[in-house]
Amino acid sequence: MKQIRVFRYAMASPDDLTALREDLEQGRVKAEEVVAVMGKTEGNGCVNDYTRGYTAHLIRDLLQAYGQNPERVALAMSGGTEGVLSPHLTVFCRTKDARNGLQAGPALAIGIARTGNIPPAAIGRRPQVFAVAEAVRTAMAEAGIDNPADVHFVQVKCPLLSSGDLARAVAEGTDVATSDTYESMGYSRGASALGVGVALGEIRHEDISDDRICRDWSLYSSKASTSAGSELAHCEVIVIGNSSAFSGDLFIDHEVMRDALDVDAVRRLAARMGLTDGSEGRALFVQLFAKVEASPDGRIRGRRHTMLNDSDIHHTRHARAAVGAILASCFGDPMIYVSGGAEHQGPPGGGPVAVIARRL
Amino acid sequence: MKQIRVFRYAMASPDDLTALREDLEQGRVKAEEVVAVMGKTEGNGCVNDYTRGYTAHLIRDLLQAYGQNPERVALAMSGGTEGVLSPHLTVFCRTKDARNGLQAGPALAIGIARTGNIPPAAIGRRPQVFAVAEAVRTAMAEAGIDNPADVHFVQVKCPLLSSGDLARAVAEGTDVATSDTYESMGYSRGASALGVGVALGEIRHEDISDDRICRDWSLYSSKASTSAGSELAHCEVIVIGNSSAFSGDLFIDHEVMRDALDVDAVRRLAARMGLTDGSEGRALFVQLFAKVEASPDGRIRGRRHTMLNDSDIHHTRHARAAVGAILASCFGDPMIYVSGGAEHQGPPGGGPVAVIARRL
Amino acid sequence: MKQIRVFRYAMASPDDLTALREDLEQGRVKAEEVVAVMGKTEGNGCVNDYTRGYTAHLIRDLLQAYGQNPERVALAMSGGTEGVLSPHLTVFCRTKDARNGLQAGPALAIGIARTGNIPPAAIGRRPQVFAVAEAVRTAMAEAGIDNPADVHFVQVKCPLLSSGDLARAVAEGTDVATSDTYESMGYSRGASALGVGVALGEIRHEDISDDRICRDWSLYSSKASTSAGSELAHCEVIVIGNSSAFSGDLFIDHEVMRDALDVDAVRRLAARMGLTDGSEGRALFVQLFAKVEASPDGRIRGRRHTMLNDSDIHHTRHARAAVGAILASCFGDPMIYVSGGAEHQGPPGGGPVAVIARRL
Amino acid sequence: MKQIRVFRYAMASPDDLTALREDLEQGRVKAEEVVAVMGKTEGNGCVNDYTRGYTAHLIRDLLQAYGQNPERVALAMSGGTEGVLSPHLTVFCRTKDARNGLQAGPALAIGIARTGNIPPAAIGRRPQVFAVAEAVRTAMAEAGIDNPADVHFVQVKCPLLSSGDLARAVAEGTDVATSDTYESMGYSRGASALGVGVALGEIRHEDISDDRICRDWSLYSSKASTSAGSELAHCEVIVIGNSSAFSGDLFIDHEVMRDALDVDAVRRLAARMGLTDGSEGRALFVQLFAKVEASPDGRIRGRRHTMLNDSDIHHTRHARAAVGAILASCFGDPMIYVSGGAEHQGPPGGGPVAVIARRL
Repeated sequence: MKQIRVFRYAMASPDDLTALREDLEQGRVKAEEVVAVMGKTEGNGCVNDYTRGYTAHLIRDLLQAYGQNPERVALAMSGGTEGVLSPHLTVFCRTKDARNGLQAGPALAIGIARTGNIPPAAIGRRPQVFAVAEAVRTAMAEAGIDNPADVHFVQVKCPLLSSGDLARAVAEGTDVATSDTYESMGYSRGASALGVGVALGEIRHEDISDDRICRDWSLYSSKASTSAGSELAHCEVIVIGNSSAFSGDLFIDHEVMRDALDVDAVRRLAARMGLTDGSEGRALFVQLFAKVEASPDGRIRGRRHTMLNDSDIHHTRHARAAVGAILASCFGDPMIYVSGGAEHQGPPGGGPVAVIARRL
Repeated sequence: MKQIRVFRYAMASPDDLTALREDLEQGRVKAEEVVAVMGKTEGNGCVNDYTRGYTAHLIRDLLQAYGQNPERVALAMSGGTEGVLSPHLTVFCRTKDARNGLQAGPALAIGIARTGNIPPAAIGRRPQVFAVAEAVRTAMAEAGIDNPADVHFVQVKCPLLSSGDLARAVAEGTDVATSDTYESMGYSRGASALGVGVALGEIRHEDISDDRICRDWSLYSSKASTSAGSELAHCEVIVIGNSSAFSGDLFIDHEVMRDALDVDAVRRLAARMGLTDGSEGRALFVQLFAKVEASPDGRIRGRRHTMLNDSDIHHTRHARAAVGAILASCFGDPMIYVSGGAEHQGPPGGGPVAVIARRL
Repeated sequence: MKQIRVFRYAMASPDDLTALREDLEQGRVKAEEVVAVMGKTEGNGCVNDYTRGYTAHLIRDLLQAYGQNPERVALAMSGGTEGVLSPHLTVFCRTKDARNGLQAGPALAIGIARTGNIPPAAIGRRPQVFAVAEAVRTAMAEAGIDNPADVHFVQVKCPLLSSGDLARAVAEGTDVATSDTYESMGYSRGASALGVGVALGEIRHEDISDDRICRDWSLYSSKASTSAGSELAHCEVIVIGNSSAFSGDLFIDHEVMRDALDVDAVRRLAARMGLTDGSEGRALFVQLFAKVEASPDGRIRGRRHTMLNDSDIHHTRHARAAVGAILASCFGDPMIYVSGGAEHQGPPGGGPVAVIARRL
Repeated sequence: MKQIRVFRYAMASPDDLTALREDLEQGRVKAEEVVAVMGKTEGNGCVNDYTRGYTAHLIRDLLQAYGQNPERVALAMSGGTEGVLSPHLTVFCRTKDARNGLQAGPALAIGIARTGNIPPAAIGRRPQVFAVAEAVRTAMAEAGIDNPADVHFVQVKCPLLSSGDLARAVAEGTDVATSDTYESMGYSRGASALGVGVALGEIRHEDISDDRICRDWSLYSSKASTSAGSELAHCEVIVIGNSSAFSGDLFIDHEVMRDALDVDAVRRLAARMGLTDGSEGRALFVQLFAKVEASPDGRIRGRRHTMLNDSDIHHTRHARAAVGAILASCFGDPMIYVSGGAEHQGPPGGGPVAVIARRL
């Protein structure tokens, strides 16, 4: 029996790993047990956000200094802590042998995997979809999860098309999905999400075609969370669910917000997990993971929003600020993982919300 | 007996008055009864936001075309519809003679007033405070409200220091509160809010000194909402409360959010007004008015936020996006008036929330 | 013989028409002679820039108040005065009968025309190209110019796809050139510029296909200046050149900058026009019109630039700030018309520069 | 006799040290000879620009890996490559013993020094001024320069007040120069520049008072270039000049731009250094260092600019884009060091420009 432990660390800046370093130093965290780190860093979350890469670089250096091979750790740094959101790291550790007296499973389980490099011509297209799907299956196996219903959140970190990629593509006559760097983030997120959906049986393999990617919003995964960045050329996959192969008092569940104001979905989730007042303290909130977006039709609850017309602030930033605050208000905690750009991740304008809690 | 009627109009852009024009045309709104218009326009809400002035210009032209003297209408255009917030106008009409069969008061009441021009040297300082306090008293009298407890929201639209003002001040050797245009908006909002507090007995006259303005956050009004703009040189005051001199089924109440995540305050307000499910439909939501801000100490619920360190997006924009979304999620409606920059308006990091509802 | 007169007015804000109003009042400008107004307003120059519409609205009202039918005046408001650029209006008047003693032509000549509304499906595509080409020919005739070589600058103001347009397109199943509002500005500018090129014989009619618009940068006009905005649904065309049908001491000439640093082109133009020190004052600078852009390959003089990767500031803003300053430094005057987004307007990374001067 | 060598390296991103690493690997650059690195990184150059720290971190790691103690190298990373400016590093190496056959001095000389930590209460105030002045004198001595006239450029990297500093200041009752993080950058730059002026005899010690810092623009150094960042708590000083204690074919000279459009000053400098066509190739351009700013009175050549009123883009970004492009156009090279915020660095609206050239 294995066990997952989860640690959250506040960061005073993208280069502040003080708290994690102290836990490594004190032995509370064992570097060789770290399997995944998901973080929110305080850049713009768009193309030229180097805070993701900065923090990732420092984490790799730190883990290496404590004896862990960074190649064996899945890193998903997501930029953008607009509004009340607070920069932080969530560190997942996997113990090889569970200690005595632990609650029997099913309990929180994690598996990781990565694809090969996605060439510029494949970004936002079918090859990326199927490469991600394959990696999700590998990660599920590692997590000891057979039934897709036991998967509640799949994080994919994926590449984007930089202006350098685009210039090379033009020079070499390579056809790419888009010639706009910011827009390429959406295509990469969209293709990755569809890959998750295919692996989990939410979307049929044969329904995937290039012209439906970032066009046909009826195709979506309700468990995918994908995030693009310039700091990697492959896709990194983290599957999170519940598995009988794991023990402990942590567990995960999820819901899908149907639009940005869908607090009912969140309340439903909290009630089911025993996190509300009425549940008499059956569980404690540990961490939340969510994907959010500006509704692509420019409307919410029948009202026009201005996020897609704003040439000063990208819509992903607006969406993180807005929905991040709503989610923070639901649990009274702004140090949560809320990521923007939910193409094919939940219904248009909505997105998946997963919560890890501790059974009491 | 007089009566206040309230209309909300969606806007497709800052120059879209289609819906109001149609109501004027059809006689549903009588121009001569319009006393105040509060609007949210889709600019950045900061110094170079000309959407406020554009919409205000068009409203004045429209009202004039329908026979109302624009000088007799208080306009408070507030810029910034970040996140889910939806651009719109709220139009307040005051009938001189109430119709038969109307519910007896106390009911929603409004009074308006304006100060003289505030010279650059007075912006953000004591003279502005006392000029606003005087105008609030005048507006209360007009609204037929004697008891400050019956006032629930006071909107002040106030001037800022443009770079032109600042250049003249330097040339003429005039001392001004700040040499930064964006910062001058905060000083002007702060002084105006203190003026409201003085008029409502929340703050003592003798506690007002220049060096406590935008410094001593223990001084605040829980009912002030102040908004700075480059489109006026005086202060425009709108007092909203309940008065026995008015009749009808509309009423107003307010609460104070203690921080950006204080949904409990909003739920308390909704319950008291009969707007929650449990209240068996005793009232219908009509409109919400709120002031929000990034907590000046850089923390919320013990977590760091990044709003004050962000040199790409001003903190007022972050705060509107975040708290605006929370408030929209409470009532399921994003077409609400949420304004940023709550200096001396509610406690630091928090702000006043007022709701108008219709009794059933 | 007709004559063109040119007036420049500084603006203190988008709603400041003080100087033009005074000239109309004093009779220095006759409203009925105004044929075109080109302005730089201080918005972001992108999708949600309402300063263009605000100023245009006020100009129309003002001209109407002085007896000119606004429909007979071509307005080209261009947003974005980044860096040293200074907001202003350039007003073109056309006298019907030239006064005695005027220098014989060829002299500065202007013609205007407009297309019908461009439906969303046509924006950035062949129908827009040919509609603009037709309007250019009409405007040339009005300017009394037969030979395309005598045309030196063609301004086109054209529509964009707002998020409203895009939502309707999706709802109605209409195929549009792009689903991104900001990107639609580029497509509309590009198609308009190709239309100018076709009319002036720079580009062959048969070389225009939808898939070369904003793709094949080898196609360009060296005299087109096109600017997109949300404030109109048709295209407005202003042809400026020299014609024997006009008299006076004003004339225009142009050059093409091959990249953003090509001051040599500007110096060549200044020398040819007699505007340099060495030319012993043969002419006086009156006004400059230019289109600029970030080189689409991300490089300039072999060095990487970051304009296309910047998710905080759109590249059109960067380019206006940079090249606008270079042009201002060439003539010592920052109150010039420099507009961003030079798709098919000059070679990639470069753009046309036209100068009006007065013969001494 | 010592000698300074200068290397420039293009960067593809803030973490790209490929070119420098290769030169270290090949022995073209000896790590132990590196004394200073000045870089332009592609962040916003304001408070939350972490690209400066990211690049600085990587440079320190790299130098250490090649045997140089990073504490002995002065790093001045300046954020902001708006417009055409190109991210790069300038590396200064100092050989201990000059090789044979070198041209005798005076030649390019460099000295470095650092202050102790500047506590928040001292930032932007007299203690910072005098700490910097002392460090400049130390660095001059190290550069073998006695006569201040032989100093042509003094780079100071200095700290800012983060929101964390400000919160602590409030909590501890510490009085600070400003409560706005972005504004604190200006105060720190201003105080540092005055320190340079005091050390070089441009400003009298007794003229320094807190209330003239960032107020009395008649006080300035024509050789100071100061840059604030969150990545250090002390000031780092690099003095660059010509000294007889150094040999080689490199030399430096400087001029002062009186405003943003003052290309005449740059041409004067180029002519004096033998860099113009007319000088028959007496010298080759090596690198340029300049400080630029938006004129604080909001005007340039009598025209209004909008940089100080822009709440979307900070004025330092505008100024770098504009003046950076002008300087790049003068030498045909956009890979130059142009830094924003020239408080007390040159006259208001202007700034110092220094050029290093190689004698032929």
